[in-house]
Amino acid sequence: MSDVFAHPWLSGLFEAPGVAAALAPTRQLAHILTVERSYTRALHAASMISDDTATAVLSCLDTAKIDDSVLREGAARDGLIIPALIGALKADLPTEFHDGLHHGLTSQDVLDSAMSLTLQGILPILRDDLTDLQLGLTALRETHGTNLLMGRTRMQAALPMTVADRVNTWLMPLDTHLENLQRIGDDATALSLGGPVGLGLPAPIGTFMSADLGLALPAKAPHVMRDHLVALADWLSRVTGSLGKMGQDISLMSQQGLDDIVISGGGGSSAMPHKVNPIRAELLVTLAMFNATQVGGMHHAMLAEQERSGARWSLEWMLLPHMLQATSAGLIAAKRLVANITTMGDAP
Amino acid sequence: MSDVFAHPWLSGLFEAPGVAAALAPTRQLAHILTVERSYTRALHAASMISDDTATAVLSCLDTAKIDDSVLREGAARDGLIIPALIGALKADLPTEFHDGLHHGLTSQDVLDSAMSLTLQGILPILRDDLTDLQLGLTALRETHGTNLLMGRTRMQAALPMTVADRVNTWLMPLDTHLENLQRIGDDATALSLGGPVGLGLPAPIGTFMSADLGLALPAKAPHVMRDHLVALADWLSRVTGSLGKMGQDISLMSQQGLDDIVISGGGGSSAMPHKVNPIRAELLVTLAMFNATQVGGMHHAMLAEQERSGARWSLEWMLLPHMLQATSAGLIAAKRLVANITTMGDAP
Amino acid sequence: MSDVFAHPWLSGLFEAPGVAAALAPTRQLAHILTVERSYTRALHAASMISDDTATAVLSCLDTAKIDDSVLREGAARDGLIIPALIGALKADLPTEFHDGLHHGLTSQDVLDSAMSLTLQGILPILRDDLTDLQLGLTALRETHGTNLLMGRTRMQAALPMTVADRVNTWLMPLDTHLENLQRIGDDATALSLGGPVGLGLPAPIGTFMSADLGLALPAKAPHVMRDHLVALADWLSRVTGSLGKMGQDISLMSQQGLDDIVISGGGGSSAMPHKVNPIRAELLVTLAMFNATQVGGMHHAMLAEQERSGARWSLEWMLLPHMLQATSAGLIAAKRLVANITTMGDAP
Amino acid sequence: MSDVFAHPWLSGLFEAPGVAAALAPTRQLAHILTVERSYTRALHAASMISDDTATAVLSCLDTAKIDDSVLREGAARDGLIIPALIGALKADLPTEFHDGLHHGLTSQDVLDSAMSLTLQGILPILRDDLTDLQLGLTALRETHGTNLLMGRTRMQAALPMTVADRVNTWLMPLDTHLENLQRIGDDATALSLGGPVGLGLPAPIGTFMSADLGLALPAKAPHVMRDHLVALADWLSRVTGSLGKMGQDISLMSQQGLDDIVISGGGGSSAMPHKVNPIRAELLVTLAMFNATQVGGMHHAMLAEQERSGARWSLEWMLLPHMLQATSAGLIAAKRLVANITTMGDAP
Repeated sequence: MSDVFAHPWLSGLFEAPGVAAALAPTRQLAHILTVERSYTRALHAASMISDDTATAVLSCLDTAKIDDSVLREGAARDGLIIPALIGALKADLPTEFHDGLHHGLTSQDVLDSAMSLTLQGILPILRDDLTDLQLGLTALRETHGTNLLMGRTRMQAALPMTVADRVNTWLMPLDTHLENLQRIGDDATALSLGGPVGLGLPAPIGTFMSADLGLALPAKAPHVMRDHLVALADWLSRVTGSLGKMGQDISLMSQQGLDDIVISGGGGSSAMPHKVNPIRAELLVTLAMFNATQVGGMHHAMLAEQERSGARWSLEWMLLPHMLQATSAGLIAAKRLVANITTMGDAP
Repeated sequence: MSDVFAHPWLSGLFEAPGVAAALAPTRQLAHILTVERSYTRALHAASMISDDTATAVLSCLDTAKIDDSVLREGAARDGLIIPALIGALKADLPTEFHDGLHHGLTSQDVLDSAMSLTLQGILPILRDDLTDLQLGLTALRETHGTNLLMGRTRMQAALPMTVADRVNTWLMPLDTHLENLQRIGDDATALSLGGPVGLGLPAPIGTFMSADLGLALPAKAPHVMRDHLVALADWLSRVTGSLGKMGQDISLMSQQGLDDIVISGGGGSSAMPHKVNPIRAELLVTLAMFNATQVGGMHHAMLAEQERSGARWSLEWMLLPHMLQATSAGLIAAKRLVANITTMGDAP
Repeated sequence: MSDVFAHPWLSGLFEAPGVAAALAPTRQLAHILTVERSYTRALHAASMISDDTATAVLSCLDTAKIDDSVLREGAARDGLIIPALIGALKADLPTEFHDGLHHGLTSQDVLDSAMSLTLQGILPILRDDLTDLQLGLTALRETHGTNLLMGRTRMQAALPMTVADRVNTWLMPLDTHLENLQRIGDDATALSLGGPVGLGLPAPIGTFMSADLGLALPAKAPHVMRDHLVALADWLSRVTGSLGKMGQDISLMSQQGLDDIVISGGGGSSAMPHKVNPIRAELLVTLAMFNATQVGGMHHAMLAEQERSGARWSLEWMLLPHMLQATSAGLIAAKRLVANITTMGDAP
Repeated sequence: MSDVFAHPWLSGLFEAPGVAAALAPTRQLAHILTVERSYTRALHAASMISDDTATAVLSCLDTAKIDDSVLREGAARDGLIIPALIGALKADLPTEFHDGLHHGLTSQDVLDSAMSLTLQGILPILRDDLTDLQLGLTALRETHGTNLLMGRTRMQAALPMTVADRVNTWLMPLDTHLENLQRIGDDATALSLGGPVGLGLPAPIGTFMSADLGLALPAKAPHVMRDHLVALADWLSRVTGSLGKMGQDISLMSQQGLDDIVISGGGGSSAMPHKVNPIRAELLVTLAMFNATQVGGMHHAMLAEQERSGARWSLEWMLLPHMLQATSAGLIAAKRLVANITTMGDAP
């Protein structure tokens, strides 16, 4: 029960395959090499390295076979893998070409830019799932919307209303989330190009790499200005918060005595074969609480010291990938849950 | 040491007078009566109540003297003050006019709309302080920007740079925060007009009140769609996060041995008269950690049940006002701190 | 809606009068002077100051009239009030006696020891309310325990059981909490006696003050070893967590359709006179979520730098008093709620 | 960068091999089968099943080969694996023996008891690492304790003291943590034996299994009384909090200008070969902030509904295993860090 998203059986419940794949170490390493490759090509385009150097470095990067153990030892020794990775690459590269590889960059430039590439792969998955969920909820409202439902406030029966009235409170926030995703996603997928203490590199390098990688080029490397990632984390947690509200409502509607909803499929009990547990509704509550727990850590991590913080940056590595997966798992579970609703409210 | 912002002496340090005044109970009650008054006028404008009723109700609202003890007993009995308040008002109002007072609204409509009016008073204070701080930091950069400073990464001396390089990381996020405030502030100051289970009131009512109170009119009462307030809380904590980063840097710069900064004024010690403690730099760290602690609670509160949640809504009352004050206190402390910097870096 | 516990009307709901009084600034100042007085007497008992000095200082402390504005300005200037307080006291004390006042202590010694005295006043209130609540729940189980109740798992009807079965899950954790309070409370009410950098004072001083004030004397001043306060915060949040579980259960039992409980008194709605809202059950959920939100901040505050931390220590001032009041409010609300239960389950 | 503890290279930094192994899915499944086996033997010892049934069921459990995909599909369908697991076992077991397998237990009994077995394997690892760290710090104090160090308060130079004075604040809390571990660990490793709605099983079953598995037998199954696990989470975070304080101090001591410490080994930079980054000191800060972030989620999870909560229980699965690994990683890093300190303070 260590990492639920990668667990051989819990991942059946905590299901986020697309985002999990985007976060896979092999994919991360590929992005890291992509950033290094783009940098070498930028140096070349700016005539800062020779044709021979560019050719040699790119060939080295294209054919690199880096053993995990080298990276693992590097992480243990240096706190991150870039020195070990560059060292391993240089071992295969004649010294005369070394100035075309990574020279001028800092580890955080590479890792943060690679993380932006990772996010570029993930955010469209979340956007598509949000859109699908909107369609699902719209169809649900279409099918059952005119059915009657007892409106409940403070968990008490209040006044009768329709199914559409409640579905609207699940559906409407998704518009806001989709609208915000565009802007927040653009900000979050920034190119990091600061060099050792973030002073930046010659302008043509940034222009080239920004176009090449499709990453926004901020005026200053965001080594210690992390609000773009915190804003993303905030958004992820607001999305799962909206899903959690829906999950909580459906859990409550499923209670015998209220009987406001019927969900097909799943939810068996080892002790009570007669039960149908609304497990995906509960899961939405779990995932909302999970992200609501993590989000504060991202805010604490904003207090990065001086030009680069080891401690706070590493905390992001521990928090953000799980928040991304929890959000994806929530969207997938919500879609399945909505699709499995067979009855909702009472015919008018 | 109960509420630091209202404490007879701690408020000297945790100073946020404008926001504290905007949150004062008398001001809250005034906003509540303003919402009720606007509603009565809207009913009248829509010809849903007679001239006589409107006149009588507005006069009653204008001259109301509500004893705190009545509200206090009401809160103890009903969980909120609106039933007791309306009861007290009606006691002074002939029964024939009762349909012009609050009739059709629900408590949350009034309290949430009044909170929006409170926010309307607070957000410009924060915006102005942000702008002032930008000016202060710009002036600081102007004065000391070309001085030399050792760039530090992972708290280790890395490479020399200038004071401007570091000040930029404090200054640049403020642009983002100001830009976001406009949009987030507009969303957060919504009119709530749902009635008992949020089904909404006749359109002219909303149109009138929205114009009258200057509050956005959402398509559906946001009784249980709270992402607009959570987004505000997120923003508040990102602002104090940026300030906390600056405070942490200045605390580190103040260390004997680094001696990167001299701050005038304050910071005396009872045991060591030779010390000058960078208390406002430390305070920025405290306030950032405070908001980073609170923000998760606002996300947890999104899981509002059904049409209205007592439990989660009350949690917002406990969290958001303190976050607003912490942010204001942070901006005020940051302005003072920046103004007190007399030396920064070394002359080139 | 700034501080719900001190608010003129919200404190009717968020009711914690005993703990609020124990946290009152006047009471805090009295504790601070008590600590200074005890220190002077300790110096005298150890023959480190003359009879005349002791008499003069104690008289000065006994008759001190300190204006809030002096303390407030001191807090604004120094980050805490002790330098200003000692300065004001010394202004009334001939210089020859100054070595009998505070000399050798540091501000944190005084404020932390005074906080321990505050906790000494608060913890018995919590203990008594816990004991009362145990009695209330035991009586509830006595009265309704054999009634039938549908056991529910994952919010689904599972198997019939009795009221006692559920009440036991509310009651049993209170035993654990009471048992832990003794030990945690003893640890939390420590004497702080470290001097400027925590090196400690001559042994007789500590022995005297520990006996005089009834505070445990740790081997080293806990200026930056804060686990005793964090353990207290953890305990407070576990207590409200247990109460929140009960509140959540009762909210669910109150639903029309389940009708497992009838609660008398209160819970009126401004829009729906027929409703009875289980407001104290909801409040227990709110307070549990509040403390669960705060507790992480106390853990973050453990990372106190070096010999004393301004930033992290101040964060405790913002968090712990509210956690104490939230816990007290929870216990008081729980007692009222249990006392108001008139029916529970179905007669067998 | 998904799960840092299981990551092919980040686990070089976030190193917790013993605890990671104890949390491995194969080990979990083994514990689950151990609990089922013990239950069957308990039924047999209590003469509730025949010799033949016991023999057949135990043989089935001993030779079971359960495919991950079966469990994964079960988790996706039922929210947990027990129904699928029992189904798969029964497929290999003649129907006449089915009453000897799991019959009377509920899924949470098995999973919670298996988690207790997991904790039984983990807590001694943490205890031993805590003890080792005590020895390491004691040796450090022995070697460098009389060296001089500038005491610093509020990050400002205060008064000279010795290395021992600071090491003591790192060392002393470990005593408290070790003392608490005994009691908290005993409480956390409870047998869960409640059946469908927690009413409990015949006394001999519990007595047998408690002795057999070495797990405490609480008076009532702790399905929804989770304070024992929350108290463990609190303890884990207090441990990493103490380590984080040490890490922060060492990061600060490592600054050029203070030069209070020299650490050998590691910390290379890709951009600045002259740097030695105190990466394990920083890691201790990261892990403390991580656990301080997670701990609130465990408190929120206490609000388990009624007899068993799906949503809150699943949240524990997401939080506790990572907290355990973060604590182990912290202890291992702290031991390495202390062992790598070659100089501390200045010779007197």
